[in-house]
Amino acid sequence: MKTLTINTPSCQSTIYCGNGAFAERTALLKGKNLFIVTDSNVYRLYKSHISGAFGDCPAYILPAGERSKNYNQLLKILSAMLKAGVTRSSTVVALGGGVVGDIAGLAASLYMRGVNLVQIPTTLLAQVDSSVGGKTAVDFQGVKNIIGAFYQPSEVIVDPLFLRTLPRREIRCGLGEIIKYGALDKNIYASLCKNARSLFSEDFFEGITYDCIAHKAAVVCADERDTGGKRKTLNLGHTTGHAFELYYKRKSHGEFVLIGMYYEIFIAKRLERCENNYADSLISLIKRVIKNIPAYDDAGKAAEFAKYDKKNTQTSLISLIAPAREDESVEITLPAQEYCALIAECARKLKEKT
Amino acid sequence: MKTLTINTPSCQSTIYCGNGAFAERTALLKGKNLFIVTDSNVYRLYKSHISGAFGDCPAYILPAGERSKNYNQLLKILSAMLKAGVTRSSTVVALGGGVVGDIAGLAASLYMRGVNLVQIPTTLLAQVDSSVGGKTAVDFQGVKNIIGAFYQPSEVIVDPLFLRTLPRREIRCGLGEIIKYGALDKNIYASLCKNARSLFSEDFFEGITYDCIAHKAAVVCADERDTGGKRKTLNLGHTTGHAFELYYKRKSHGEFVLIGMYYEIFIAKRLERCENNYADSLISLIKRVIKNIPAYDDAGKAAEFAKYDKKNTQTSLISLIAPAREDESVEITLPAQEYCALIAECARKLKEKT
Repeated sequence: MKTLTINTPSCQSTIYCGNGAFAERTALLKGKNLFIVTDSNVYRLYKSHISGAFGDCPAYILPAGERSKNYNQLLKILSAMLKAGVTRSSTVVALGGGVVGDIAGLAASLYMRGVNLVQIPTTLLAQVDSSVGGKTAVDFQGVKNIIGAFYQPSEVIVDPLFLRTLPRREIRCGLGEIIKYGALDKNIYASLCKNARSLFSEDFFEGITYDCIAHKAAVVCADERDTGGKRKTLNLGHTTGHAFELYYKRKSHGEFVLIGMYYEIFIAKRLERCENNYADSLISLIKRVIKNIPAYDDAGKAAEFAKYDKKNTQTSLISLIAPAREDESVEITLPAQEYCALIAECARKLKEKT
Repeated sequence: MKTLTINTPSCQSTIYCGNGAFAERTALLKGKNLFIVTDSNVYRLYKSHISGAFGDCPAYILPAGERSKNYNQLLKILSAMLKAGVTRSSTVVALGGGVVGDIAGLAASLYMRGVNLVQIPTTLLAQVDSSVGGKTAVDFQGVKNIIGAFYQPSEVIVDPLFLRTLPRREIRCGLGEIIKYGALDKNIYASLCKNARSLFSEDFFEGITYDCIAHKAAVVCADERDTGGKRKTLNLGHTTGHAFELYYKRKSHGEFVLIGMYYEIFIAKRLERCENNYADSLISLIKRVIKNIPAYDDAGKAAEFAKYDKKNTQTSLISLIAPAREDESVEITLPAQEYCALIAECARKLKEKT
């Protein structure tokens, strides 16, 4: 088990990563005042692990799925915490994927102005990305993550145990974020290239988890509150990914990140902001994870939704983070109209190829 | 105009205090992306000031009164912010008393995980206490302040301009917190004693505002998140005040703080934790502000609600902060049963006197 510590102005957060982390760390939590938040999938699959680790603690079980990430469920969790007599000295345990981590983290930050929080991510995406760094949120009135808080967990327990039951689609989503880290970090990029033919093997994605977390931890230490500094780079692929997510809805966040990266790398190449070979190499990695990049008919229209990304404070300009060369990303800011035209062009080119 | 800066691990907050502060500081805000939150009373009384200072900014007007401090109103504010196109670079201005400050502060902390916040307190209580220090909250399912956040305003504008329309009852509430500061700070105590016969004069309470803020600012710098350190002392009178507030409901927060202080000073005296003369002097100050301390018939039963105070993490023990001697407070922890019996005894004694 490896450990890693994030020190931010507001607190300290320790990440325990590796085989056995769940058993070892939860043994230390047993007997404390715990309140578990999980979802119906995780509960069904890991019932015996949960009762073994936590006994019969009070718990709230979210309906599985992205749609649970709303303020109604948030209030239900807070209400259940109140009923269970959660106090200031209690600990909220968020056991699940990104949705559970985001909503339980926000509940923990709000209850009595903040109680202790432990994140136990159970999906590859949550392990490499969303459980680390303290971003919590719910969606509201159709806008993603519009209500939220920065709230660091005291610890994050990352155990590959949970990855073995993940469907291939969930692995794909996690690989999306891993490729994003590859586009920001040359060591992760080298691992990806070396293992290009076996990205879906357990050995590969379990091994790379720690490196991704270490990259994110360093970024969060430098810019916890995402105020225009380094943390922005983690948004690579997300401007377009989020826009498509708002417009098309059907796929999951990780898949849209993969698609968003593809479209944004196209723009970076087209504007000569990214080395050609490097762009092609990243694109070939993306295509190993998601074979068919959708050639959306109305991609230009969907791209308009990038205006609603909270990073874009001026709606006439769109900013995105694209890879430039190994270990280096670049912020590209362009008029919304030009951005939408380039996205539409990328979709046309994709269509021609098929 | 005096200024004062609070530096906490998470941010910096500047307080501008004195005549002309409103005009001078809002002149610098004009033209920025503002979103105003106020209430129907303040809006009615200060319409021309508001439009003079802010033009026709988007605004949300809460129904005046303590009952607006709930999550329904919180969601309505967030929804209005979304509709008005508030972005990460916008500023929320909370113009009003404690309710407006608490709910607008929480909305600002949650929207896009936090936008800039300016507090302009318009009541004496909000000026000397609630607008400073970053505590924000709403009530939920009958429990006070159970959903909230620590979120520092970038600035607090404290101008006596707003105090001149305050009803006597509101002044009384502010004086409750001022006496609390007197019980913690010998300079404020000396001012109170010197002006004992003119506590309700504008000159007095406008003058003492800065000293109370300065006391609070120092405490907040030392213990922003109220984690068992100095900030706990600010809770003097509040354990019993909150318990009565939950049980009897009819009076306002500031009045219950006055009543709570009276009962807690009785306990401190009875347990020989407070010097007799000092206790009597504080009690005579309290009685100058609230003549008739209620001799509740079921005070002991009401006191049981102290268990629900979020500071009391063990329900079998009650903790309260009481004055000990000039410039010194003491934490008294006692079994809930004993606490309730002493509260009932205090009520009986009060009854005998009348």
